[in-house]
Amino acid sequence: MSIRVGIYGYGNLGRGVELAVKNSPDMVAVGVFTRRAPESVKTQTGIPVYAASEVEKMQNEIDVLILCGGSSTDLPEQTPQMAKLFNVVDSFDTHAKIPEHMQRVDAAAKAAKKVAFISVGWDPGLFSLARLYGGAVLPSGNDYTFWGKGVSQGHSDAIRRIDGVADAKQYTIPVEKALAKVRAGENPTLTTREKHTRECFVVAKEGADKARIEREIKTMPNYFADYDTTVHFVSQEELNEKHGGLPHGGVVIRSGATGENNKHVIEYSLKLDSNAEFTASVLVAFARAAVRLNKEGACGCKTVFDVPPVYLSPKDRDEVIAKLL
Amino acid sequence: MSIRVGIYGYGNLGRGVELAVKNSPDMVAVGVFTRRAPESVKTQTGIPVYAASEVEKMQNEIDVLILCGGSSTDLPEQTPQMAKLFNVVDSFDTHAKIPEHMQRVDAAAKAAKKVAFISVGWDPGLFSLARLYGGAVLPSGNDYTFWGKGVSQGHSDAIRRIDGVADAKQYTIPVEKALAKVRAGENPTLTTREKHTRECFVVAKEGADKARIEREIKTMPNYFADYDTTVHFVSQEELNEKHGGLPHGGVVIRSGATGENNKHVIEYSLKLDSNAEFTASVLVAFARAAVRLNKEGACGCKTVFDVPPVYLSPKDRDEVIAKLL
Repeated sequence: MSIRVGIYGYGNLGRGVELAVKNSPDMVAVGVFTRRAPESVKTQTGIPVYAASEVEKMQNEIDVLILCGGSSTDLPEQTPQMAKLFNVVDSFDTHAKIPEHMQRVDAAAKAAKKVAFISVGWDPGLFSLARLYGGAVLPSGNDYTFWGKGVSQGHSDAIRRIDGVADAKQYTIPVEKALAKVRAGENPTLTTREKHTRECFVVAKEGADKARIEREIKTMPNYFADYDTTVHFVSQEELNEKHGGLPHGGVVIRSGATGENNKHVIEYSLKLDSNAEFTASVLVAFARAAVRLNKEGACGCKTVFDVPPVYLSPKDRDEVIAKLL
Repeated sequence: MSIRVGIYGYGNLGRGVELAVKNSPDMVAVGVFTRRAPESVKTQTGIPVYAASEVEKMQNEIDVLILCGGSSTDLPEQTPQMAKLFNVVDSFDTHAKIPEHMQRVDAAAKAAKKVAFISVGWDPGLFSLARLYGGAVLPSGNDYTFWGKGVSQGHSDAIRRIDGVADAKQYTIPVEKALAKVRAGENPTLTTREKHTRECFVVAKEGADKARIEREIKTMPNYFADYDTTVHFVSQEELNEKHGGLPHGGVVIRSGATGENNKHVIEYSLKLDSNAEFTASVLVAFARAAVRLNKEGACGCKTVFDVPPVYLSPKDRDEVIAKLL
């Protein structure tokens, strides 16, 4: 029987989940749950749209609910609340607050005997797995994580809040020289500035002072001040045409040594045309695992570290062993 | 309390395990078990050497036995036999015979209530995990595995068996053009010849017919006939000096698409100075997992697909979540 998936929230991530479920042979999407007026929302694949408040009546129709809200205000509330009713998966990515989030979700999920995966996606998520496997295999070594080339939505938003800016896209770009050193096993110590550069494409409002905008971007604390930042002013047309997508990616490298200084480099990299669709695909694989774990009696808050990889595959264990081992 | 590790077999792999255990904060090596005369074997770190037949008396002193024999004749016998007495880990890598090996090991381990990991290393092993995660996340896509640049011991041995050959080393090398196509998301169909080339460094015996040797190498079925093969004749000194190591590595790529043809490329790559020491490091991480799983009551034959990644880390779960997620 197909795994029945509910999609809670219908922005870029929720839309990606809808497509990923459609692409999964063993799953079916029950519907989208939104805080907007349901009749105002049209789904890509024609699945029904419900008011978010309807979800609790549908416990018997949903095997796992994928939470597609944001980490700042949505998920800290929604994940513990929904874990009382459903197996859930979220993409909570505020690293510093994960332990606190985990504790609240764990209490809710245990009380309800549900499985709740938090912080699923690619970072946190697949990159975390790469860091774990790398460090377990090469205990003497260093971890390096580079992000990009890709669009950072947080940084793009920060530019858009500057007076005189009509629109903006910001790319995070790994510094090739630093990457090359790490790949060569040199184990360098790298500052923030040495690891990434930032490139901004900005649409200025008519008559705005571009020199001031550029200065405000480059000196913005936390976001840009610690980086070598390039600012390009472009027209709205050019921004839409050349910078319309949300590509992203990055690299996790474990560089370590064994024996008499035999060096080993493990590299895990992602090149993604669509950050949201890829993240959604990861969520859907862990949704499968949540349902399987729960059927076996597991409950509580789980991370990507806590599930045997075979639970993620639509194939059964014998087939996985025969074909992939 | 430290995990007490026995090392069964003391070739390159066993020596690598000895060093990897020494490098693991939570483990101690109890000793090496060998079929040679124990007094003829000297360990690198001074750990004791026992006759292989002594091992069954040491059930109370060993938490996990790492089997360091070969896949062709040693492991098919040793793993089921030792799984009756110990938690074990092996590196069985004859892909076609894994299901049969698994069945025999599973029966032994279940009867003894022990955990037995088979087919651990990098391929099968970490590369298998990359294939599983990649396919679970991107169900619409293709897997590509490239090996090298690295020394293939099986191919080097095959050359050494040719009449007139004194010594030889064979490198397997991925074809850059093929790799580039895969990395670009082109999803090419690749023949054996298009994926890898083979480069051979051969020491001929005095007076041997080099042209015949080269011909015999290049036309050898299974090993070389399907590849573009280059043969270099070198002196024993040059072979020792420039080709003394056992470097290896490779790449697993999952190339897939989501939504309206948004392409994604996941790449997992290894560059290893010492194949044996790296493989040994993987075995040791899974030895840790075997002991932990068994303490929780698990038993039977396991693969890399069957264990939550957190069991591999010397760190505890809270620390792993705080630092690596």
